[in-house]
Amino acid sequence: MAKSDIEIAREARLLPIEQIAAGLGIPADKLYRYGPTKAKLDLGYIAGLKDRPDGRLILVTAMTPTPAGEGKTTTTVGLGDGLNRIGAKTMIALREPSLGPCFGLKGGAAGGGYAQVVPMEDINLHFTGDFHAIAAANNLLAALIDNHIYWGNEIGIDTRRVTWRRVVDMNDRALRQIVSSLGGVANGYPREDGFDIVVASEVMAIFCLATDLEDLTARLGRIVIGYTAERRPVRASELMAAGPMTALLRDALMPNLVQTLENSPAFVHGGPFANIAHGCNSVIATRAALKLADYVVTEAGFGADLGAEKFFDIKCRKAGLAPDVAVVVATIRALKMHGGVAKEELGRENVGAVQAGLSNLGRHIGNVRAYGVPVVVGINRFTGDSAAESEAVMAFCRELGVDCFLNNHWAEGGAGIEAMARRVAELADSGQARFQPIYEDELPLFEKVQKVARTIYGAEDIAADAAVMKRFAQLEADGFGHFPVCIAKTQYSFSTDAAAKGAPTGHIVPIREVRLSAGAEFVVVICGEIMTMPGLPRVPAANAIFVNGKGQIEGLF
Amino acid sequence: MAKSDIEIAREARLLPIEQIAAGLGIPADKLYRYGPTKAKLDLGYIAGLKDRPDGRLILVTAMTPTPAGEGKTTTTVGLGDGLNRIGAKTMIALREPSLGPCFGLKGGAAGGGYAQVVPMEDINLHFTGDFHAIAAANNLLAALIDNHIYWGNEIGIDTRRVTWRRVVDMNDRALRQIVSSLGGVANGYPREDGFDIVVASEVMAIFCLATDLEDLTARLGRIVIGYTAERRPVRASELMAAGPMTALLRDALMPNLVQTLENSPAFVHGGPFANIAHGCNSVIATRAALKLADYVVTEAGFGADLGAEKFFDIKCRKAGLAPDVAVVVATIRALKMHGGVAKEELGRENVGAVQAGLSNLGRHIGNVRAYGVPVVVGINRFTGDSAAESEAVMAFCRELGVDCFLNNHWAEGGAGIEAMARRVAELADSGQARFQPIYEDELPLFEKVQKVARTIYGAEDIAADAAVMKRFAQLEADGFGHFPVCIAKTQYSFSTDAAAKGAPTGHIVPIREVRLSAGAEFVVVICGEIMTMPGLPRVPAANAIFVNGKGQIEGLF
Repeated sequence: MAKSDIEIAREARLLPIEQIAAGLGIPADKLYRYGPTKAKLDLGYIAGLKDRPDGRLILVTAMTPTPAGEGKTTTTVGLGDGLNRIGAKTMIALREPSLGPCFGLKGGAAGGGYAQVVPMEDINLHFTGDFHAIAAANNLLAALIDNHIYWGNEIGIDTRRVTWRRVVDMNDRALRQIVSSLGGVANGYPREDGFDIVVASEVMAIFCLATDLEDLTARLGRIVIGYTAERRPVRASELMAAGPMTALLRDALMPNLVQTLENSPAFVHGGPFANIAHGCNSVIATRAALKLADYVVTEAGFGADLGAEKFFDIKCRKAGLAPDVAVVVATIRALKMHGGVAKEELGRENVGAVQAGLSNLGRHIGNVRAYGVPVVVGINRFTGDSAAESEAVMAFCRELGVDCFLNNHWAEGGAGIEAMARRVAELADSGQARFQPIYEDELPLFEKVQKVARTIYGAEDIAADAAVMKRFAQLEADGFGHFPVCIAKTQYSFSTDAAAKGAPTGHIVPIREVRLSAGAEFVVVICGEIMTMPGLPRVPAANAIFVNGKGQIEGLF
Repeated sequence: MAKSDIEIAREARLLPIEQIAAGLGIPADKLYRYGPTKAKLDLGYIAGLKDRPDGRLILVTAMTPTPAGEGKTTTTVGLGDGLNRIGAKTMIALREPSLGPCFGLKGGAAGGGYAQVVPMEDINLHFTGDFHAIAAANNLLAALIDNHIYWGNEIGIDTRRVTWRRVVDMNDRALRQIVSSLGGVANGYPREDGFDIVVASEVMAIFCLATDLEDLTARLGRIVIGYTAERRPVRASELMAAGPMTALLRDALMPNLVQTLENSPAFVHGGPFANIAHGCNSVIATRAALKLADYVVTEAGFGADLGAEKFFDIKCRKAGLAPDVAVVVATIRALKMHGGVAKEELGRENVGAVQAGLSNLGRHIGNVRAYGVPVVVGINRFTGDSAAESEAVMAFCRELGVDCFLNNHWAEGGAGIEAMARRVAELADSGQARFQPIYEDELPLFEKVQKVARTIYGAEDIAADAAVMKRFAQLEADGFGHFPVCIAKTQYSFSTDAAAKGAPTGHIVPIREVRLSAGAEFVVVICGEIMTMPGLPRVPAANAIFVNGKGQIEGLF
């Protein structure tokens, strides 16, 4: 029987984090250590690197996934290890996993098999406390809002129009919608309220887009927490919230340095939701990694239509990053699913279905190329895949002029992905990339969405009712028209219908709602249902989690 | 102008935490470091110390305080420094401050002046994340409860009788009373619910009373989360919650090692509320300190009627600790207040009022002696105190045969408290202590409360209505009659009337409510109003907190 992720992780020979840092030229006194194998890196030290040249930036994205995910993180980690194996000095930059979901459905988010970042129990649970700090900052602002109302509401906040919600890092459906401030005069003015999971907080998005402490404070102050009765937006700065929120986030803003099973250095920092936020690790970590290594491998949430699009159009645009190459991860399972095979049948060889599903992969490849970024396809190999199935993908990619590699990093670590690593490094060094976002800042908000829908989703058009159009107009009038759009839609299809597999065309993308993230500096455009607070399943993973006699956590995987 | 606490703290010459540990004989590889000056201490290492002899245990408690507090923490830190100065190998064991209140009223809880534990910003905010872990464990249990109900409620939990509340480490009155699970079928069954501040969680009390990970798990499983319609208590273990809660608390359970401004070693670990819990730092920290040092100075929340009583009757009883000596902290301000002086007049010399207020101090001295513990009085000197006022206290103590010292540790550090340190060490070594709790385990619950009220509070009797009596009877029938009682009442008077100063007699203590803490193993007896979720003031301290250009947190003090 195959070893579990946690068994593999426990067998790893971890190096002291000082040694990992030394490999990057980081002096030990610039580390703020959390135990022997985790450390935060001093922000002043990072700022001092600004005149160094940047390394190459490599994005790992994916085709439209199955609910199990196609192994973007595993590929990111494996590719980083593979690059280091071939002598390319490489860092990995990943998002931090959210604690709450670990107690819901089985599975963490630190990679898998022989391509993991470690210590995985720590990374999956409290890690260095960043998400707790983000929750505290979010909830301090919430408390300041209700406290202001309680003490006379000088600003005139309309209690029906408070948009700022509280957060908790737990899958807790009971908190999605509540009435707060019940119980009489001493507890304030009752109003409708609710909790999101921490990763859905705008504070998380701001945290990941901020370039330093000063920028963080400025962005926090610009958060719009709700409106007055006259519809004037109320900012967090009016509640004097940006200072204390920054105090709560100060240490968290230092990126977290860990290592892979093969001792490659990795930043794991920030973890915004990929639907109502941009789904990429922090700008600070990515930028620091580019100064510390010759190659940086990073990933973006969901499939390329969501993750890569936001990585390019939000993160790279805002942070001035220019990716050199992208890897689109594919799996035989996902291709068969897009070829019309039912979940139960995905384990059975079906070359025809793989071929039918390639339309999905093909569109993602074209999309990434549309951003001016060279593409490589990496098949994340599963034990049940047949040679004929893989060969169908290879043939397809050959026709498109894209290199495709059958990677076995899950089973073999970096050695299983060396061939792709060589090609990725070659492409990154080739100077082929001509990165540009898909739309200009100046384009009206509606047209930005239209552009993404048509170019990336293959949609015929978008649709919006009068209320949505009015909201766009209001946002533009309020001076937010130059923001990029952050589109929230299902990750299971190019359309807004999760059941529409492959590469649908001719569909219309209906906009349900528009939300402003004034501090993160994007406009969230919601197309379909979005979930900002998950629930626990009937049999939660929590049931199997415990600490064994050796003090080790069991059941996390 | 006097320097602020934070200015003093910043000027301190902190030693690397490895060096502090080395002074206690702790090898560096038994430390789990959080930056250069904080570390957690390995539980296995602590367990390995069990055959060492225990050091002397010194409790710092206080007279009935003013709302500003009388400086118990400051005295505890100063005394620890003073003992080390005179060559007595001493550790300090303190509670961790709660993050939320730092944003409410100005002031932290890491001591003050030249008697502080450092790094104070860290200790007052996230520290090593223990409270965040406790919040997560508490809220996981809450989520599991509502999730169980959502998926069919096999156990038959009565949604009207769920006693387990959610927590957040924030002063947020809006969350005291809420209705949760609104919004339709997908969000569960609406019910009344609410949030407490983290320190009020039973998880916090359990955390502080647990002797190791195994005991922690067992206690968490025994938590009663509510009742079925048939009034059967439902345990956390029925929801399989103890395992995952322990996983969340595993790292937090290691005690936190820091240092004072004078480099004395201090454990700062756990921080249960002193009203609905027992208000003392963790048993694990206290026991470890007794193995590592010859003298351990610790404190207990509120005045001696509450803090010392619970320290003796709950913590020492349950953990098998035997204190050797106690210091009762007094201030001239508090004595004048008990002598009838209004708050605005406390700064003016008033020897008569001091003398009138000594009845309060006198009763506390008598109470501590009733536990068989030798007493010393330490006056925490304020700049405005007059010599005649201090002399009045000295004279009173001489009459009682109690040594009294005028301590100046706030201004001078350990040097300002050396005389008391010598006497405390002498008394601790004298073998005079004959510690015993004030009541026996076997006494019925009602009689336990009666015993405390009569002996410690000077009350004539206690009063309870039929519902309370029925609840006591039910608890005894359910097998909880042997638990100690944890009495929640105002800390501002021996009676339940906060305005009754001095040493009131003849009063009746009415019991309003009785709550079971089955995992912490005590019965909470509520006499008067208790607050488990504070609010923010009109002008919260948050308004003045920010990060300065050097990355330092300003405004915490």
